[in-house]
Amino acid sequence: MSNFDLESWLRTRRAEIDALLAARIAVVPTDADPGRLVEAMRYSLLAPGKRLRPLLVLAAAEALGREPDEPLRLAAAAVEMVHCYSLIHDDLPAMDDDDLRRGQPTSHKVFGEAIAILAGDALLTLAFEWLAEAGAGALAATGDPLVAQRHLRAVAALAKGAGMSGMVRGQARDLGEPQPESLQAVEGLAAEKTGALFRAALEVGAVLAGAGPAQEEALVRFGKHYGVAFQHVDDLADEDHVTTQTEARQRLHVLTQTALDALSLFDRHAEPLRALARRLVDG
Amino acid sequence: MSNFDLESWLRTRRAEIDALLAARIAVVPTDADPGRLVEAMRYSLLAPGKRLRPLLVLAAAEALGREPDEPLRLAAAAVEMVHCYSLIHDDLPAMDDDDLRRGQPTSHKVFGEAIAILAGDALLTLAFEWLAEAGAGALAATGDPLVAQRHLRAVAALAKGAGMSGMVRGQARDLGEPQPESLQAVEGLAAEKTGALFRAALEVGAVLAGAGPAQEEALVRFGKHYGVAFQHVDDLADEDHVTTQTEARQRLHVLTQTALDALSLFDRHAEPLRALARRLVDG
Repeated sequence: MSNFDLESWLRTRRAEIDALLAARIAVVPTDADPGRLVEAMRYSLLAPGKRLRPLLVLAAAEALGREPDEPLRLAAAAVEMVHCYSLIHDDLPAMDDDDLRRGQPTSHKVFGEAIAILAGDALLTLAFEWLAEAGAGALAATGDPLVAQRHLRAVAALAKGAGMSGMVRGQARDLGEPQPESLQAVEGLAAEKTGALFRAALEVGAVLAGAGPAQEEALVRFGKHYGVAFQHVDDLADEDHVTTQTEARQRLHVLTQTALDALSLFDRHAEPLRALARRLVDG
Repeated sequence: MSNFDLESWLRTRRAEIDALLAARIAVVPTDADPGRLVEAMRYSLLAPGKRLRPLLVLAAAEALGREPDEPLRLAAAAVEMVHCYSLIHDDLPAMDDDDLRRGQPTSHKVFGEAIAILAGDALLTLAFEWLAEAGAGALAATGDPLVAQRHLRAVAALAKGAGMSGMVRGQARDLGEPQPESLQAVEGLAAEKTGALFRAALEVGAVLAGAGPAQEEALVRFGKHYGVAFQHVDDLADEDHVTTQTEARQRLHVLTQTALDALSLFDRHAEPLRALARRLVDG
């Protein structure tokens, strides 16, 4: 058994991410904030959240021995912004039409639909600005031209996970098709709608920490299985799982073990990732 | 007088951009296209358009002697995708609520609001994926590590122009404030809502072609004035200009001349940019 203290790790890292988000999107006086756009961005982004995706970026980098610095945290925060934008747009009346998110009224309920759409657009756009800024910062700190190339690959990984072949495709599928019934269909949808951004988080962390091909492949494989397992946990908590609870619990165990197996080539530095995966099962 | 043939230049370059867009977002059979997401992306992106923003990317690069190759065209197309996403979201019922765009029904009229929102999201996301891909392609072609850094700067420039300090801010302001009345207020809004993406187009072209600081500054200055002049032309054509027509025409001439003045340090390679600016006045 490992004596790695996940709760302490989560607390520290989450506080760093939260501090960065709050500081980087500064409060703007209302009269200098047309339509309360920035206020709407802050409202959704700074709502209490688990910050799971940026934590996975940091944990993937840590598996390769890379401690978080400012550019890496900025890249991690970029992944959280993509997640946050997707929640705002998902909650819109034309989409899931939700009134509550994380225990508070949804963005369009507070700021109106137009600003909710624009706040989502702005967060998505800012994510890529921050990834580029992280690259410029890391390049200035290291002078290593490889750093720019890595950040460019991170841009590609995040865009791919978030876009028409990943998360957005999953959202479109979720709207357009009847509720999936088979376990395979449930997991296929989860792999796109939720899993693609988890995979991207692992890939961003891996790429920025300079993973070799085998390491990168292993971390992405972890992310792929972790993402679908996470969706099972989410569905089980909501009790809206269309497959049987027993079947979903079994799959959760299998997927978590497969995710853990993907980490066999890493040493103790991968403990945060391992502990995050174990927690899916232990609750 | 220059004997540069703008119409021929536009025809050639526009055909290349159109071909790239059509080929890169390939037709997907409906049963493999959940919610008709890709069909919606193609519908808006391939509607006949002037392709002004990608042409400005290419013209800026050409001012520095850089002929368009596949990675540069891909980066130029990325700027067009950002423009296209903004039109789809701008037309939504919660925003401008428009039924027609470029002579055809708007995206939400054809595909529904949810898919229109997601198609916009996907185009914005894909723009950054393409910029990253352009960087990878250019890096493979040249082996020059500086190339990755330039593309990372292009990501930052496009995100900045498109986002919360640029285009999206302008859209939020357009929604939240009364119609501007003074010339200064009209131009202030135009600088954000329209101008910021024009500036970004020039900056992307300049950065990718390896502009020095003075060259980059000059090209961005051109874009800034060109963008506001363009908005005057647009408003004059719509006859919805709140300032007097005479005043707007005068400003159009001044802004165009200021844009042309910014190009004084460039040789004949800047003829496409100069001709594009002159055309604003000559119609």
